[in-house]
Amino acid sequence: MAFDEVETPFGQSGRIIGGSATYVAYAAALFGDDVKQVSIVGNDFPEAELEDLKSRGVDVEGVHKVSDKPSFYWKGKYHLDMNTRDSLATELNVLADFNPIIPDSYQGAEFLMLGNLVPAVQKSVIQQLKVKPKLIVLDTMNFWMDSAWDDLMDVLKLVDVLVINDSEARQLSNEFSIVKAAKKILAMGPNTLIIKKGENGALLFKDDKVFFAPAMPLDEVFDPTGAGDTFAGGFIGYLAKTGDISFENMKTAIVVGSALASFCCEEFGTSRLKTVTMKDLDARLNDFVQLVNFDISLNA
Amino acid sequence: MAFDEVETPFGQSGRIIGGSATYVAYAAALFGDDVKQVSIVGNDFPEAELEDLKSRGVDVEGVHKVSDKPSFYWKGKYHLDMNTRDSLATELNVLADFNPIIPDSYQGAEFLMLGNLVPAVQKSVIQQLKVKPKLIVLDTMNFWMDSAWDDLMDVLKLVDVLVINDSEARQLSNEFSIVKAAKKILAMGPNTLIIKKGENGALLFKDDKVFFAPAMPLDEVFDPTGAGDTFAGGFIGYLAKTGDISFENMKTAIVVGSALASFCCEEFGTSRLKTVTMKDLDARLNDFVQLVNFDISLNA
Repeated sequence: MAFDEVETPFGQSGRIIGGSATYVAYAAALFGDDVKQVSIVGNDFPEAELEDLKSRGVDVEGVHKVSDKPSFYWKGKYHLDMNTRDSLATELNVLADFNPIIPDSYQGAEFLMLGNLVPAVQKSVIQQLKVKPKLIVLDTMNFWMDSAWDDLMDVLKLVDVLVINDSEARQLSNEFSIVKAAKKILAMGPNTLIIKKGENGALLFKDDKVFFAPAMPLDEVFDPTGAGDTFAGGFIGYLAKTGDISFENMKTAIVVGSALASFCCEEFGTSRLKTVTMKDLDARLNDFVQLVNFDISLNA
Repeated sequence: MAFDEVETPFGQSGRIIGGSATYVAYAAALFGDDVKQVSIVGNDFPEAELEDLKSRGVDVEGVHKVSDKPSFYWKGKYHLDMNTRDSLATELNVLADFNPIIPDSYQGAEFLMLGNLVPAVQKSVIQQLKVKPKLIVLDTMNFWMDSAWDDLMDVLKLVDVLVINDSEARQLSNEFSIVKAAKKILAMGPNTLIIKKGENGALLFKDDKVFFAPAMPLDEVFDPTGAGDTFAGGFIGYLAKTGDISFENMKTAIVVGSALASFCCEEFGTSRLKTVTMKDLDARLNDFVQLVNFDISLNA
């Protein structure tokens, strides 16, 4: 959980609430009031934001509040393509010594989403859980591939699903072909791999199976910050709600994640996620069906 | 129809047969033996290649043979991403004064595919047809937007479907958002727009409707040259075979085009297209169904 400041071709966000865990929580909470948040915030983090999360059914007992330091802060500027960005400022602040403690009341959680963070910290969360979750999903990024390769390899062996973007998949596997990259990565530990391609959708790989979910073509991508985390939150939230972790159900889950991510891009930060309803999601899922649904009648 | 020489990270093609019309013809001919080719070749073009086309059911009466000049020649080198390339050599040769003459036996054609070429030449083909075709599809490129804008605007008013890639759509519309670009372009003349995104699939726009066909994730894109033309040839070939130009049928047609394009990328030049069968295509279309087919059971 963090402060972000975002500049896009459409304007400036000012200082707003962001952070991987925030987006994941808002997205997952759409599917039930049993989301348990683990994170760290500083003395500048507004209590009202935690109340907002609580009002959506997110338990924030595991959000550690540090009294003598500010929250993590990131400032970024998007290029015209809205797919690439420059980081203008990154202040770790409280995140520098984040040592998450899992509250007792969180034990028994069946679905665990590990947002992008130091691999050793992600591992410590897994190790604190007394009962192995039904599904562990992990996000990571190129930074950890450069700086904490061994720890990353270590935690990858403990997770079921890895969620990364295409350039991260290429770096992790040292393969340019996404299909070859997926095969190599699936040999590193996770049994399922999701490769996000931004406005070009997402691929789901398991064994020799592959599924593709497009991104919804939008009139305007207003702010893509958090879209990947929203996607992951929608994915795991849908799986947790249905309790079904089959490949077939994961297909639907990444379409759900993709649909929620499209809402995220419509406004700065978490604004749209705070208001999105199941009815909105249903309508957009119908748009997705229209977007990809076709008849094969080759011999007609 | 042309000679190409292609360099990819996987090797060098040497001097091989290429050209937009060649790829379109091979792809379309899979759907019936009533493809009528209009093109120009030089004194170096192998008779055996024309025989190959004829053996697939392509009428080459409209292929003009020039006795004192060589064929068009292009040499290119692909970057590692296989989506971008540098042109190393372009020799227009016979193409410099191409003035296509439509044979009488071609009159009455119901489906017309205009490969990427000087817009005024594309227009002259339309004007030579005594009966307006049921469907006219046009391909173009950024070069003509820079050098023949007025002629391009002119021919766009005469066609039903425009097929371009995403960067061309952005240049043509001066809009970055693909959705906004599509709206502007549909106001220029064509009632249907296809935007190709290479390995990221293709979008079909008509009125307020949009459909997305993914590209098949391949282990290796061996040589993408001609994939766009193969896509267009498969699209119009399928429509001609079924005789149905509804939006619904166009959805299937772009999936068919995308499937055929995936074969094209498996070998250098037209090699794979010369051997591909309807059975191969059927199998790949089933792969496409698996790739995008999902259940929406949100309230399960």
